[in-house]
Amino acid sequence: MNGAEAVVATLRACGVEVVFANPGTSEMHLVAALDREPALRAVPCLFEGVATGAADGYGRMAGRPAATLLHLGPGLANGLANLHNARRAGTPLVNLVGDHAIPHKQFDAPLESDIDAMAGTVSGWLRRCTAPAAVGADTAAAVAAARTAPGRVATLVLPADVSWSPGASPAPPVAAPTPTPVADDTVTDVAAVLRSGEATALLLGGPAVHGTSLRAGARVAAATGARLLCETFPARLERGAGLPVVERLGYLPEGARAQLQGLRHLVLIGAREPVSFFAYPGQPGRLAPDGCRVHTLAGPDADIEDALALLGDLLPPATTGTATPTRPEPPSGELTGETVATAVGSLLPEGAIVVDEANTSGLWLPAATAGAPRHDWLTLTGGAIGQGLPLAAGAALARPDRPVVCLEADGSAMYTLSALWTHAREGLDITTVVLANHSYAVLEMEYDRLAPIPLTTGHARRDLFDLSRPRLDFVRLALGMGVPATRATTGEDFTAQLATALAEPGPHLIEARVPALFGPQRLVS
Amino acid sequence: MNGAEAVVATLRACGVEVVFANPGTSEMHLVAALDREPALRAVPCLFEGVATGAADGYGRMAGRPAATLLHLGPGLANGLANLHNARRAGTPLVNLVGDHAIPHKQFDAPLESDIDAMAGTVSGWLRRCTAPAAVGADTAAAVAAARTAPGRVATLVLPADVSWSPGASPAPPVAAPTPTPVADDTVTDVAAVLRSGEATALLLGGPAVHGTSLRAGARVAAATGARLLCETFPARLERGAGLPVVERLGYLPEGARAQLQGLRHLVLIGAREPVSFFAYPGQPGRLAPDGCRVHTLAGPDADIEDALALLGDLLPPATTGTATPTRPEPPSGELTGETVATAVGSLLPEGAIVVDEANTSGLWLPAATAGAPRHDWLTLTGGAIGQGLPLAAGAALARPDRPVVCLEADGSAMYTLSALWTHAREGLDITTVVLANHSYAVLEMEYDRLAPIPLTTGHARRDLFDLSRPRLDFVRLALGMGVPATRATTGEDFTAQLATALAEPGPHLIEARVPALFGPQRLVS
Repeated sequence: MNGAEAVVATLRACGVEVVFANPGTSEMHLVAALDREPALRAVPCLFEGVATGAADGYGRMAGRPAATLLHLGPGLANGLANLHNARRAGTPLVNLVGDHAIPHKQFDAPLESDIDAMAGTVSGWLRRCTAPAAVGADTAAAVAAARTAPGRVATLVLPADVSWSPGASPAPPVAAPTPTPVADDTVTDVAAVLRSGEATALLLGGPAVHGTSLRAGARVAAATGARLLCETFPARLERGAGLPVVERLGYLPEGARAQLQGLRHLVLIGAREPVSFFAYPGQPGRLAPDGCRVHTLAGPDADIEDALALLGDLLPPATTGTATPTRPEPPSGELTGETVATAVGSLLPEGAIVVDEANTSGLWLPAATAGAPRHDWLTLTGGAIGQGLPLAAGAALARPDRPVVCLEADGSAMYTLSALWTHAREGLDITTVVLANHSYAVLEMEYDRLAPIPLTTGHARRDLFDLSRPRLDFVRLALGMGVPATRATTGEDFTAQLATALAEPGPHLIEARVPALFGPQRLVS
Repeated sequence: MNGAEAVVATLRACGVEVVFANPGTSEMHLVAALDREPALRAVPCLFEGVATGAADGYGRMAGRPAATLLHLGPGLANGLANLHNARRAGTPLVNLVGDHAIPHKQFDAPLESDIDAMAGTVSGWLRRCTAPAAVGADTAAAVAAARTAPGRVATLVLPADVSWSPGASPAPPVAAPTPTPVADDTVTDVAAVLRSGEATALLLGGPAVHGTSLRAGARVAAATGARLLCETFPARLERGAGLPVVERLGYLPEGARAQLQGLRHLVLIGAREPVSFFAYPGQPGRLAPDGCRVHTLAGPDADIEDALALLGDLLPPATTGTATPTRPEPPSGELTGETVATAVGSLLPEGAIVVDEANTSGLWLPAATAGAPRHDWLTLTGGAIGQGLPLAAGAALARPDRPVVCLEADGSAMYTLSALWTHAREGLDITTVVLANHSYAVLEMEYDRLAPIPLTTGHARRDLFDLSRPRLDFVRLALGMGVPATRATTGEDFTAQLATALAEPGPHLIEARVPALFGPQRLVS
């Protein structure tokens, strides 16, 4: 058995079922090995950023890793931004990167580059295979590393000669390390804080915003009167009718500070201390107010479930409040970010997976969907735009039983647009809504906050933030990649098109023409 | 003056005229500074890989750097693959990367990552600004570093607070270091080799394949009977009727070895010793035959012009043979890679800049255009696909007086397709031909070379190399970004469409449906 065959057999033995792949010549033996393993699904992506984003979406929804297959340093480079998002999301992900054969590296051939330096920036675990005899164990170790709580990007670099040489064998699965236990004293201290009667909030994050931990955290809040917050960009937030209501921290620091004002205690559960997304002149980076003490019950890598169970035992029983089932009426009239949100809220199906990269146009989405049937909400955890369309592909492959709704800003959509082809290729049940405001509206806002000068003076602002010259036509772009597409310019149109797209299986795209929330009104329909 | 204004003023003072930009919040003061400097053109790109590829194209054709403007680590990550190509091309390029404000970095905010580690993989020079007082000098140093022979990627990391803080001033230009002089003994030794009567070839590369050095190298070959070769993927090869004929080394190692067979001496002029692009089991990485001595007259960073002048003085005068003006007849019948090449050869305008990322479908292009009017040929120097469309944008901006013909494989086109929008936005005179074989044909070939197993057994090969399910529609994709587009399925169609596109100003795209050179015949029209 050659090294590549041992990699594939070990991945399979360790429960990996999908490989999102952009192979090249140095990975040909891995393709051949996949050819002999029908149980591993090889999903073609037309760009590595699609492969890594899809693997992120898969890991978030499956709770176990998919693998990527990337070609040398440039292939890894193209996938880095979405690996950055996966790292921030705590997603389990096995990142396979092919390299030149070991004796070939000395020649500094055209595609040679420092893979390890690049991979180090996004990987929680990084290993370079050096021999066929070790490759099975290396692969099993990569899967275990990927499954280390809360989830990691585990990068395994596979030189071509390790792949093609004989003498390899598969390795059995390796148990992932158990999450770090939380000390009894920590739990006792937090319980005392919660019973103090002082203004307290729980800040949930990482794996604590869905499943058992979310419910346990909500019970703790209900039992003590603490507020229930979560981080700004959760990896997978479970919400909707019948589920606990969690308040997300705002994106802008002044908003987040207002939310935290008056708190004497902030208890972190799977979250890190909240900080400003960007720095602004003269503003502090930390968001918690002066005089607010920050306590960590459990970091993202800790045994959060156990810590919450122990904490619950020290508190009185309580009934958690949950979101009331309620839907807005379908909108009519002008199509805006607000009416798009209303339509989504009116139609969101039970069990939907919502991928949210709507940016400024998505401002109204959380409120409009709060009482919709239960669903998962996946956000831009690392801030690297171009995540949404790939993430939707991975989520749909992880959960073919659930509809995916991908809410995508036009500027961000253009980063990894070819993911639409993968939606079509795999027949994925994804309804993509492109909120087309023909602008980098977030930059219009930030410019005015950071460097206010009159708009008329500036050629750079005028040229760099404007996507309307020429106007991108997402209907044509989607059709060009095999995804059925329509355009909506009124609330009625959009509602009808969304209903149709949700009712039909397979991928759809709706271009929703909306005005930009910030900056000049450039769109003339 | 704040730091951002000093950066912009210094760039301008140092002769930088264009910035290919994807800014974010941390670069807002740089946008504001550009707003106050109308002489610096800010070109919007919808993805950082477009910005870096365009800066590469600009640098190759202008001979002086453009700047990029990238947003933090993820923005840099998205631009890395084309920076890799620029590094391999020896392109002068000032790579500006914004970072969080210095006091903000401790908070590990969501977009924080190790910019320096990533940048180090592609940069010949890398500096992080630490104070407004230094930023002018840092910028001037970056431009000088970019202009260091043959040209470098010079990365300057600009923290947001350095940009927004006062106390900065512009710096005057700094002279780039002069190229490394070549020792007289080296020239004498090479002259002796050339006069030895033994089988010798010159291998030109880097900056020696255009301009004065190309002509001087050709005279040396003519004077001594040496063969005139150049590296496989030249950054900018000047060729066509009336210019020296240079034989490019082949891509496949067996082909390149056949070209070099029998040589006793290989003299490197601006080139590095040729090595196999990829490793193959049991094959050596070096391409020069056993018994062939490799001599370096001048490395890429040496004073190549001076070395060739000194060498010429030691040799008898000679008249260089040049390519005869000749064009193929326009093709008819089935459209194939060969007939596309024939049509291009029959119509290529005088002074064209040809961007060649046609990959397997481009096999016939060099022969078909050898006698066309003089032109420049820009190739995929670093092997990182997704270069062509951005490179064309930069080349067109550097030389608005010349038509650009971009020959692009479909798989590669999908990597950075949004460059088409920049073609439209800037009204660039670029004719893009997408050679649509609906396949990663090069991988079909390499699979059979590396891991031959019967095609019918393999789901991975069938799924990963096939771009025909669904078939990409480049006409719709181009129209969706504002570029007029047509489709050709016969030689006559294609010739007529190419003639029209070349005759009209502004961008055009032609989808040329061609059969794949390797792999199963999947395309059913």
